[in-house]
Amino acid sequence: MRVDGTPYQTVWMEGATVRMIEQNRLPFEFAVISCPDHRATAEAIRVMTVRGAPAIGAAAGFALAQAFAEAPARDPWGYARAARALVEATRPTARDLFHATERVWAAAETAEHPAGAADAAVQAARALAAESVASCRALGGQGAALLGDGARVLTHCNAGWLATVDYGTALAPVYVAVAAGKRVHVWVDETRPRAQGARLTAWELGREGIPHAVIADNAAAWLMSRGEVDLVIVGADRVAANGDVVNKVGTLAKAVCAREFGIPFYVAVPPSTFDRAVPDGPSIPIEERSPGPKTPCSVT
Amino acid sequence: MRVDGTPYQTVWMEGATVRMIEQNRLPFEFAVISCPDHRATAEAIRVMTVRGAPAIGAAAGFALAQAFAEAPARDPWGYARAARALVEATRPTARDLFHATERVWAAAETAEHPAGAADAAVQAARALAAESVASCRALGGQGAALLGDGARVLTHCNAGWLATVDYGTALAPVYVAVAAGKRVHVWVDETRPRAQGARLTAWELGREGIPHAVIADNAAAWLMSRGEVDLVIVGADRVAANGDVVNKVGTLAKAVCAREFGIPFYVAVPPSTFDRAVPDGPSIPIEERSPGPKTPCSVT
Repeated sequence: MRVDGTPYQTVWMEGATVRMIEQNRLPFEFAVISCPDHRATAEAIRVMTVRGAPAIGAAAGFALAQAFAEAPARDPWGYARAARALVEATRPTARDLFHATERVWAAAETAEHPAGAADAAVQAARALAAESVASCRALGGQGAALLGDGARVLTHCNAGWLATVDYGTALAPVYVAVAAGKRVHVWVDETRPRAQGARLTAWELGREGIPHAVIADNAAAWLMSRGEVDLVIVGADRVAANGDVVNKVGTLAKAVCAREFGIPFYVAVPPSTFDRAVPDGPSIPIEERSPGPKTPCSVT
Repeated sequence: MRVDGTPYQTVWMEGATVRMIEQNRLPFEFAVISCPDHRATAEAIRVMTVRGAPAIGAAAGFALAQAFAEAPARDPWGYARAARALVEATRPTARDLFHATERVWAAAETAEHPAGAADAAVQAARALAAESVASCRALGGQGAALLGDGARVLTHCNAGWLATVDYGTALAPVYVAVAAGKRVHVWVDETRPRAQGARLTAWELGREGIPHAVIADNAAAWLMSRGEVDLVIVGADRVAANGDVVNKVGTLAKAVCAREFGIPFYVAVPPSTFDRAVPDGPSIPIEERSPGPKTPCSVT
């Protein structure tokens, strides 16, 4: 998507370096940081420089690819194994992260010698990011069909392009609908306690020139009761085999209120967010559902 | 209630001066301000130095009493009439304000000459504040019966003693139950956008040593879904003849979620909050339901 007219993605790889938008500084400052090795990339995931399930997945894939590229000749698999454990411990909320490390690891394993493993890992990480963009774009196309001209969409947290590599999940339908000439207004839940709606969703909608208003999380039910919300679209951290959705705190309240007021409620997710290994939401350990960063987020 | 061991009320009259706790500075600073005339008291209501329906009522009664005491001998009723209009325009959300000005005005009208009107007005304003304390205390006694030992109460906004002259409405049952030896834990909704829960409710519960936790407004439904809330108690700005409740934004979402999860939901109000002149909630003009201050709140 665009930032002051320039197209950007949230996270990408340039040579052996992973680059990403520093989301902790938004909306006050737009900065791109460089992570020279897998440890720096893992740290960026942990402190939420990059966040959002699909974007975390892409960053984790890149981090593991960096590890294979950095690995010493003496024990490349031991090095990569330790790196994988480090990356997987950063933010275990989202299924996408594990999806990415599993896939990059499997690609490396198919290679015949260590140097080949690094190439295969980098290639797999790039392919994963590219597929993530394609799947978000496809999600947008399907979702846009739900939006009539003049639609008023309520969203919670940030599941826009900043939460993915590009396009977003919950906001992809909005971007695609607007590109097709429809008028769309977005009610942006502030999303306390970290204010991802006020900080990130409002920022990215503003960069694309899409009408929106940040509202107190408390106001959503009132707007629904007055018929000012046509539909709710949110993203998800993880979707269990039975369809149970794990997402940012507050999603439950929006869903209950949407049902109360007869408003359609959609969860927009790419395939990488499904976790068929868990039968339902309650089976996901509580610490994996709401961990947050282990240290306060720092902007350095 | 107590502040560092000293008993305080939210607003009171000393001679011709109205004194009140400066609530815009809480929880960072505890200060009592003096309003030497009715204009200063009205301004304090407008900028939310004093807020909460019953506390606004008491302050409004005192302000009108000040006006009668200040009134020039030439046209005391004209002066008082203008003062009443000024006071009634400060924060028309709450019924209590009009209840107070009507009552103080009626008391003044029964006096036989202007000087007597001032005395009668001051006396009526003081009586109104004293009755408000008594009715909150009685409310607490009734509500405390709902709280078992170990009860976990969720509340929204501040309907504690700072919102009244003393004891509070929603929190009165908590204070009375704790005084009777019961253990009570309070979940305090942060209450965005003005954070009255985080700023005021947490402060006054802390001063009384009552266990509590401030939560993001978004977290309430999740706590309810996990069985960690035994009941919800909120105050109200106004209650219509049919029982419809007008209260701080976010109350609707809590009520809908409480029903979803089978949790009792109570609205604690004194008689002065009932407005039998309006048949139901939708009949209350929207600008009287959510006006907020006309200028940003200033701490001076």
